[in-house]
Parts: sequence; structure tokens; C-alpha cells
Amino acid sequence: MRIEAVDFFYLAMPEVTLEADGSQDALLVRVAGGCFEGWGECEASPLVSIAAFVTPRSHGVCQPVSASVLGEQLDGPADIRRIAALVERNSMDLLQAAHTFSGVEMALWDLLGRARGVPVWQLLGYERTYPKVPYASLLFGATAEETLQAGRAATARGFRAIKFGWAGFGENGVDSDADHLHAAREALGPDGHLLVDAGQIWVEDVEAAAARVPALEATRTTWLEEPFQASAYEAYKALSKRSGEVKLAGGEGAHNVHMARHLIDFGGVGFVQIDCGRIGGIAPAKAVADYAAGKGVTYVNHTFTSHLALSASLQPYAGVEASRICEYPAAPKQLAVDITSTHLRPDANGEVHVPDAPGLGLEVNRGALGRYQRSVEISVSGKPLYQSEAIA
Amino acid sequence: MRIEAVDFFYLAMPEVTLEADGSQDALLVRVAGGCFEGWGECEASPLVSIAAFVTPRSHGVCQPVSASVLGEQLDGPADIRRIAALVERNSMDLLQAAHTFSGVEMALWDLLGRARGVPVWQLLGYERTYPKVPYASLLFGATAEETLQAGRAATARGFRAIKFGWAGFGENGVDSDADHLHAAREALGPDGHLLVDAGQIWVEDVEAAAARVPALEATRTTWLEEPFQASAYEAYKALSKRSGEVKLAGGEGAHNVHMARHLIDFGGVGFVQIDCGRIGGIAPAKAVADYAAGKGVTYVNHTFTSHLALSASLQPYAGVEASRICEYPAAPKQLAVDITSTHLRPDANGEVHVPDAPGLGLEVNRGALGRYQRSVEISVSGKPLYQSEAIA
Repeated sequence: MRIEAVDFFYLAMPEVTLEADGSQDALLVRVAGGCFEGWGECEASPLVSIAAFVTPRSHGVCQPVSASVLGEQLDGPADIRRIAALVERNSMDLLQAAHTFSGVEMALWDLLGRARGVPVWQLLGYERTYPKVPYASLLFGATAEETLQAGRAATARGFRAIKFGWAGFGENGVDSDADHLHAAREALGPDGHLLVDAGQIWVEDVEAAAARVPALEATRTTWLEEPFQASAYEAYKALSKRSGEVKLAGGEGAHNVHMARHLIDFGGVGFVQIDCGRIGGIAPAKAVADYAAGKGVTYVNHTFTSHLALSASLQPYAGVEASRICEYPAAPKQLAVDITSTHLRPDANGEVHVPDAPGLGLEVNRGALGRYQRSVEISVSGKPLYQSEAIA
Repeated sequence: MRIEAVDFFYLAMPEVTLEADGSQDALLVRVAGGCFEGWGECEASPLVSIAAFVTPRSHGVCQPVSASVLGEQLDGPADIRRIAALVERNSMDLLQAAHTFSGVEMALWDLLGRARGVPVWQLLGYERTYPKVPYASLLFGATAEETLQAGRAATARGFRAIKFGWAGFGENGVDSDADHLHAAREALGPDGHLLVDAGQIWVEDVEAAAARVPALEATRTTWLEEPFQASAYEAYKALSKRSGEVKLAGGEGAHNVHMARHLIDFGGVGFVQIDCGRIGGIAPAKAVADYAAGKGVTYVNHTFTSHLALSASLQPYAGVEASRICEYPAAPKQLAVDITSTHLRPDANGEVHVPDAPGLGLEVNRGALGRYQRSVEISVSGKPLYQSEAIA
């Protein structure tokens, strides 16, 4: 079939605050071809990502993403990889292109899966899937007591793994951080999995990160995520030699396969976390999962938004038995909940299954989303370049 | 002084073609503070870069670039680095931010230099400057004969160094590439410096690149630039061991200091080429120049557009005596010529001097630019978010 149309829908909560919560807005992508449509989601700035699809070209390798997508033939997985290579080439100098294409690529897989009546994970070559243990992704509380309460609320909902992050961690002193970590461990009990996300707070200051290792070890934290800027491989490597039983994790900032591979090879992480909404979609994420497996590194999804994004992020490693856990947005904004009419709820064992249904296996709930939509109009030299369609 | 306003001017030739010529459009940035103004230029998609400045925020670390710039205090070089760190933090998840901020950062240096009455290179800590031998940056011809003629035209203008690139090189077979290389060497004569830019054409195919090494060696090519995707360090490293006397060059795609350092450390390049309009401006480029010097790697600017961009790109290594050559846009579109009313012409020795004048030392020729301007209007939810000011 031919890719006939690509449409973007910018959705946002009425108020978007400065908290580190990526579910406050969303950029949905719909791709139409044949008699089918597929949906994806960019984990990226909506307006800027739309602009990267429609912008006038600057030169041969600074073309809009649309130039490599619209009108292209889509008859199988090889076409998706071919189109991705076109984008990489034709939009080489357009930095935002990877973020824009991520949602488009997801939608292409969804479209192809729906057209063929098979799940995306099958198109990726997996014969079966393995359920994942979801970890609740939560922000640290303003006080250790708040962290304790947030952790208890999550364990009460059945979570056996919790990741705490951001909200001042790493900025308020080693003792304060230790208090939060002990509160988190107390909430989880002795057997739960405790994960910590530092949100790049130490930039590339290895000593500042190393100062937290004793408390991380004392609370038996499984991983310390993003201690540094996404490309500070030297700092990652140095810390990895001093972090004892605590492994390093990172990768959500990777906007191509190279960056994820480098974090493994040069940064020494034990867990590589990929956001399909940033790395260029599902196929590059699968390439990272394959690469990680060969290096003894555990692949994990990075997902903080909707269940459409969650399904997409599970596909690349759905068939990898050794990768047992998955990030699960435990307290998203209502917008993220409303994006799909069905959701990936944990089963009786508390495990999450990737859908055994065509494409990404979830339905976008267009009727519920009108109230969140922010219409976008872009004109250049007085001529309309982009005008968003109403989602509902 | 306080940063009072940042304005963008999107300029373009009447027709923007698919040729690999980055001078077909431009995004100028003007920053106003105190009674002064400074100018910079993003080497990036204009519309997308503007959108990254004005976009509504998505969350705490996906804020528009404007949030970290407008209203900030600017009293010295440390403030520019402080603001850059704010952008890196607050726009962590906004991929285009580095490209947008690059032009803003240049303008901040220009503004500061004008306010203090000193050149930017002095603000960077250099006590004197060294002239550079400019190389003409040209596209290969459609035929070897056209390459020969283009090379002869450049040598007739006094150029002793020429870089040829793009326009099918690497795609049309080893023999065809060899013909072009020999034509280029013939045009330059035995003593000229021949440089070759492959424009990432082989992505990460080391064998395809290695197949061109014999002809590159036979024509005594100084460097082979960007054989691979900007982050394909493993491929760079593998080729660097097989490229004989020909050194590898790269770095124009670096959008932060880390990427440039990695190309040196992991990619094994002999020349690192930095575009101040992409890496985040002048200060990160200076950091790369310092790092390269310590590693025995030669720093070179990457500049394909205006002389405003050329001046900015010379500042970071103006005081490095060992870095002798500079890229010089030899056949830019008229737009790029018209951006400034003064130009950096080679002296009687054929060498280029960074201006010994306040700031970047060039005047933007606003009056000449009205005919190139493309006005931009962006609205979100029916409310105007951005409306460009007329440049003339």
C-alpha cells in the first residue's frame, strides 16, 4: 500500500507545569494507507516535532520528514527500515527529525500489523512473548515521608518494583537523598525491586554521583539511572567502576541506535532503557535489544506516557525472556489514560502482557480527546503550511 | 545587562533546491540587551529552530529555549556558559534546542564583545590571533571535467586548498570517484591541499569507504571527511586503521561537546570540524579546540554560509597557531553574501584574518535582506505564539 496521509494531534492538559512529568502533553500520529490506519506517539515537543514534518527544506539533507514518508510504498517491514534510512539521509541536518519520525515509525508498524492482521512483535520476528514485571515510575516526594507514602500507595496497588526519581534528588545533599532512599526501601519491603532515576542531575560530576553509592548499596538499589548527561560516557564508565552492586542504567535520551550502543560499549551500563518515541521508533529499539543481548546488558523500555506508547515500547523486547521488567506509567495525567480506550493492565500475577492483537493492539479513543487538543497553525510568507485537523 | 529580546529572521533564496548547499537559506538571530545588540546564525532548519524557541513547554526539562534566555543577566563570559547550562538542563528533551541555541549563543558573544569594545576571541582568552589558509569548499562536478573546471576556477582565485564533496561522490562507483579525485588534483597542481568530503554517504559501510583509499592516497588527499553517519565511531575507527596517509575528518554533526570528543577518542579522526551554528555556539567550540589540542588532533571550522557564521567559527581557534587552515565558503548563494556589509577577504598572502574589532566584527546588512525574508506565523489554540518582525 501507499502511505497516503500523516496527521499529528497535539494534546495537552489544561495546565502544563514544570514538574518532570512527560505525560502532561502528547503528540499522536496517525498514518493512513490502503483502507487502514496506524497510530503512534512521539515522546517529544509537539509543536517542534510537527514543524520538523512540514518545514520548508533548507537543502538536500535538511529536508522535512514528510519528504521521506508521504507517498512511499509500505508492503512489509523492509519498507519501514527503508523509509527510516531515507529520513536519516534526507533530514541529516534537521536535529528534531528523529523525534518526529519516532511516532511516525510506530504508526507504520501499527498500520502494517493491522493490514496483515498480526501483532507488531510477530512482524519483528518473535514467535512468542513473555510477560513483564511492571515497575511503577514515580517522582520522589518533597519529603522522605511523602516518598514513603507514595511507595506504600504503589505497593498497595500490587507493584513489586518501584522507580523513584527527579524532584530534587541529587540536589539536596547526600543525607537527604539517603533519607528518601531508605523511605523507598521501607515502603517496598525487603523483597521489592528499588530503582532510582537521577535525571542527569550530576551532568558529568562523578564524585557527586559516587557520594550516593553507599546509600544506594545500603538500600539494595538495583540500578541508578541517568546519573549524567546522556552522552557523558566517560563519566558513566568511571562511575560504573565505583558503583559496587548497583548497576548503571540509561539510554532514554538516545535518538539513534549508535547512542544506545555507545552507552553500552563506552559507558558500561548494565541496563539500557529505550524510548521508542525518541530513538526513531520500534525497529531501532529492536536493534538495540538485539545488541544488548549479545553484550549481556538488560534491555528495558522507557515509557512515561500513554498505553499506546507502552505497547509500542514493549514490542521490541516482547520475546526476550531474560528481560523481565518493564517501566509502567503508574501515575500518569488523565490525558495519557484517555488516549486509548483499552489499557494494558497487570494480570493476576501482577505481570503485563504485550497485546496479542493486530498492530499495537490498542484503540485510540478519539472521542475522548477533543478537550485536550491544541490546534496548530503555521504560515510561512503568508501561506498556510500546516493546519491541524480536529481529533474529535 | 539584561537580555531583553531575542528575534529570529528566516531568510531564503527564491528557490531552495535539493543540492547539498547549506547557503540556500539562513536563520539570523538578534539579541538585544542594554543599548547594544548582537547577531548570530543557526546552521539549522529555520522554521523548526524558531519553533524550539517559542514552543509551549511539555514539562520541566522539555521547555522552550526562550525560558532559559529571556530576562537573564549577561555581564561576562561566565553568564553565557551559565545560560548554556540552563538550556541544556531545561530543554534536555527538546532535541532541536542545541541548533536553536547555537545562533543565540553566538549573538550573546557578539553582544558582550560590542558592549565591552573587544573582539570575541579576546573574551575567549586569546591574546593574539593567527591567520588561516582558507580552503574553498566546493561541490564535485557532475563529470570529472566539471570538477576539473571548478577546481581551476578556484585556484585562479588564489585558493591553495580545495575541498570537494557531495554531488554523487561515493555513489557512482570507485572508478568514477577516482576520476573526480585525479581531476581535482590536476586542477590544484602538485602542491595544493586536496580535501574530500564524503557527506556520510557510506553510512557505516567500512568496506565501501576503504575501496576509495587507493585513489585518495594516489591523489595525496589530506583528509577524507564524514565517510559515515556522525555517530558511527566504530566505523570511523576501523577505517582510520586502513586509511594510510589519509586522515579522517568529521564533527560538523556534533550538537554538543561530548559528540566531538567521542569522535576524537573513539573515532580516531585526525581533524575535528566544528560548526558553531550547531554545537551550541562559540564556547562549546572553544572547549573542543582545547580538547583537540591536548590530543594532537587538528581543529578546523565548518562553515558553508555567511561571513557572520565564518567570523563566529574562526573565534574558537583564532589563537591556535598550529591550526593553519579554515573552511571558507567559496561559492555561496547571494543571500549568504548579502547577510553582512563587510566580508573576510583573504589578504595578499591568501590568508584570512579573524576581525580585530568588537564582538564578531561584522555588520549585518539588514537593508539588503528584506527581499530574502520569509515571515513566519505560528498559532496554538487560535492564539498567536510567534510573528516574525520585518528585517528591513
